[in-house]
Amino acid sequence: MEAPLVDVPEGGVTTPRGFLAGAASARIRDDYPPGRLDLALLRSERPCAAAGVYTTNRLQGPPLRVTQRHLADGRAQAVIANSGIANALTGADGLRDAEEMARLAAEKLGVAVEDVAVASTGVTGWPLPMDRIRAALPGIELSRDGGASFARAVMTTDTVPKQAAVRFTWDGVEYAVGGAAKGSGMIHPDMATMLAFITTDAPIPHDTLSSLLIDVTDESFNMITIDGDTSPEDMVLLLANGAAAPDAAPFDAAHPALGLVRAAIARVSVSLARQLARDGEGAGKLLEVRVDGADSVEDARRVAKAVVGSLLVKTAVHGNDPNWGRVVVAAGYSGAELVEDRLSLSIQDVEVYRSGVPVPFDAAALSRALAQEEVRMRLDLGLGDGSATGWGCDLTEDYVRINAEYTT
Amino acid sequence: MEAPLVDVPEGGVTTPRGFLAGAASARIRDDYPPGRLDLALLRSERPCAAAGVYTTNRLQGPPLRVTQRHLADGRAQAVIANSGIANALTGADGLRDAEEMARLAAEKLGVAVEDVAVASTGVTGWPLPMDRIRAALPGIELSRDGGASFARAVMTTDTVPKQAAVRFTWDGVEYAVGGAAKGSGMIHPDMATMLAFITTDAPIPHDTLSSLLIDVTDESFNMITIDGDTSPEDMVLLLANGAAAPDAAPFDAAHPALGLVRAAIARVSVSLARQLARDGEGAGKLLEVRVDGADSVEDARRVAKAVVGSLLVKTAVHGNDPNWGRVVVAAGYSGAELVEDRLSLSIQDVEVYRSGVPVPFDAAALSRALAQEEVRMRLDLGLGDGSATGWGCDLTEDYVRINAEYTT
Repeated sequence: MEAPLVDVPEGGVTTPRGFLAGAASARIRDDYPPGRLDLALLRSERPCAAAGVYTTNRLQGPPLRVTQRHLADGRAQAVIANSGIANALTGADGLRDAEEMARLAAEKLGVAVEDVAVASTGVTGWPLPMDRIRAALPGIELSRDGGASFARAVMTTDTVPKQAAVRFTWDGVEYAVGGAAKGSGMIHPDMATMLAFITTDAPIPHDTLSSLLIDVTDESFNMITIDGDTSPEDMVLLLANGAAAPDAAPFDAAHPALGLVRAAIARVSVSLARQLARDGEGAGKLLEVRVDGADSVEDARRVAKAVVGSLLVKTAVHGNDPNWGRVVVAAGYSGAELVEDRLSLSIQDVEVYRSGVPVPFDAAALSRALAQEEVRMRLDLGLGDGSATGWGCDLTEDYVRINAEYTT
Repeated sequence: MEAPLVDVPEGGVTTPRGFLAGAASARIRDDYPPGRLDLALLRSERPCAAAGVYTTNRLQGPPLRVTQRHLADGRAQAVIANSGIANALTGADGLRDAEEMARLAAEKLGVAVEDVAVASTGVTGWPLPMDRIRAALPGIELSRDGGASFARAVMTTDTVPKQAAVRFTWDGVEYAVGGAAKGSGMIHPDMATMLAFITTDAPIPHDTLSSLLIDVTDESFNMITIDGDTSPEDMVLLLANGAAAPDAAPFDAAHPALGLVRAAIARVSVSLARQLARDGEGAGKLLEVRVDGADSVEDARRVAKAVVGSLLVKTAVHGNDPNWGRVVVAAGYSGAELVEDRLSLSIQDVEVYRSGVPVPFDAAALSRALAQEEVRMRLDLGLGDGSATGWGCDLTEDYVRINAEYTT
C-alpha cells in the first residue's frame, strides 16, 4: 500500500477504462420538472466480474430481486437505474416491471439480459410509468464522459450528485476505481435507500471481488446513518472489467496488487459515504465520530453508529450545543462493553470528559467551534484495541420539512 | 377481571391510601423561573413492598445505583426526586450527592435511609446544587393531595404533568392504584429518560410485585418511543403499602384478586405511557400502532416499535402524508418474520395495502383524516396469533428546536 492513490477530480463511474454511461429525462414523476434526469444506463464494453451488497430489509424490492438473480453467476455488463419511484411494495406488477427494465436495457445495449442489474429509488408503493421509460430509453447516448449524468440521474432528495475516483499504477499499468452514489434520507448501517455503483478496470475475479466488497462496505457505507430507516431497494454494486490490462494475471486473493486495489476501492467508498452523510436530508454539517480503545472492532462500530445515529446528538450538533453527555449516553446504550471510569471524550479536539469525570471547558468557545461544517468527536473507551469511524449529519428542521412533504 | 376498574379523574400517586406527597422549588437550575417545582417527595405511612425496572443503558446514573441498592431487600417507604439535572456522568461526586439526597429525605421523613428511592432527571454531566436541595427540603409539606405537585415537580421538557389512577373493589374493600410519570425526549422501549412512580394500597408481596411490574412494563412503558435514545436515569417504581386492608391476606401469585390488581396496574401504566407518547418533545399527535397476525408476541412488539420509531413514519404523520409505504418498510426492517403477500395495512381505518398489493384510496380524504390528534395504524402480518400495540408521536420542527437549544 506504499504506491500512491491519486484522486481524480470530477471522476466517477466512467473514469475506469471500458465503461460508458448516459442518462435521460423520462418524467418518472409528474412533479419532476422537464429535463430532470431520472433514467440512467451504465455499460461495460466487456463483461465484468460483479458483486453486490443488498439491503437487510425483509421486504426486498423487485429491482433488487432481479439484480440478485442476474448477478448470481458473478457476472454483469450493464446497469439500468431510475429515480423518483422505488418500485417497491408493488406486488407481482412490480416484479414484471423490473424484469421489463432489464430486458429493455439489454435490447438497447446489445448485452445478455442476465447481465443487466436494475436499481430503482424513490417513493414506495407507486407503479413505475413503464410507457415513459420505454419512450425515453432509446434517446440515451452512452459516452466515456457520461459518469456525471449517471450520478445526477439517480438523485432523489440529494442536493448534489456524489462521485469519486482514484488512480494507481501497478507493474507499469495505470488502473482506476470510480463510483457514484445516491443517498439522502433513510440511510443507515446495513444499507438503506442508498445506491452505490463502483467500477474498476482492474482484473479482479468474482470471488475476490465479493469478499472485498463486503469488507469495504462494512467500513464505509455501513458506517453512515441519516435517520435509522432502511429501504427495500438499497445496494452497492461493484463491477470489474479488467480493461486496463486485458492480458494481466487476475488480481486474486494471493496477488500482491490486491492490497492496493482494496485501498483504492475503500478510498472511493469512504469518499462516497462521507458525501452521503454530508448531504443527509436537511443536513447542515458532517459529523465524524472516531472510536478507539474498544474491546473489539465490532464494539467500536456499535459505539460510532449509536453516536452518529442519536437524535439528541444530531440536534445538539445542529444547535452548536456542547451537550457532551448525550454522546456518552449514546455510547452507553450502543450495546458495547463499557466501563464508566475509563471513558474519555473530545469534541472538536476539546477534551470534555476524562476517565469518567467531566473536564471543565469553555462552553462558549466550544459552541463556536461546533459552528463549522465538519464536527469531529473522539471517544476513547480505554479497554482494548478496537477502532472505527462513523459518519452522520445533524438533524435540522429542514429534515422534518422535507419528509413531511415528500409525496403530497 | 369482571369487576370494573373505575378511573379516578385527577388521581395520582396519593390516590391510594397511606401515601403522602409534596414538592418545592429548589432552583435546581439557574434558568428555572422562581416557583417552578423541581424537588419532590413521596412517603408511605407504612413500609411498602417495592419493585423497580431500570434503564438498559450501560451507564446507570448514581441515583439509579442508590435506588437499586436500597430496593434490593424488596422494601421502600419514600421517594425523593428532582428535575433539571440528571446527576449522571458525574463520577464519584455524583454518587456522593445521590447518597446525600437519600439521607436528607430519610431525616426529614423519619424513615430508614435504606428505604428511600432516589430519582433525578434532566441534563447529564452537571453537578447537582446540593446547597439548594438542602435549603429547599425542609420547606416541603407532605399531604394526601400532594400527588399533583409531585407529578409537576418531576417534569423537564414535558408540557403537561402525567397522572392516572383507578379504583376497584374486592371482597368489600376498595383498593386504588395511582401513578405519575415524566417523559418527553429520549423515551424508548427498554426505558429512557422516563420516570414513572406507581403506588397501590393493595397488599402485594415483593416477589409477586416484581414479576407483575416486569410484565406490565413490557406492554406499556416499553411500547412507547419518542426518539430512540435511552438515558442512564430511567426507571419505573411500584410501591404497595397494603393500607387499604391491613389485615387482608397478601395478594400473592395464587390469590384470586391478582388478575384484577394486575389489570388496574396495567390500566394506570398504559394511561401514563399514552400520555408520555402524546407529549413527546415537540409532538402534535399521538400515534397508535396495532399489530396482529404476527408469528409471536415478540414479533408483534418488534413491528409496532419499529413503526412508531421510524423517523420517516413520524414525519409523514406530522405532514398528514398518507405515504403508507414507509409503514410497511419499517415493518420490513423490524427483524420480525414477514411474508410480503400476507401483509395488510389500514391507516385511520382506511385500507391501503392488502395481502402485499396496494389498494387504491382517496389520498386527499386520508390526508384530512390524518389531521387529527390521534393517528391509528393497524398492520396484519397474516402469519400467526401474536398481537401488540405501540405508541409514539409525530416528529416536528419543534422537536429539533427544543433539542438544539436544551442546555445553551
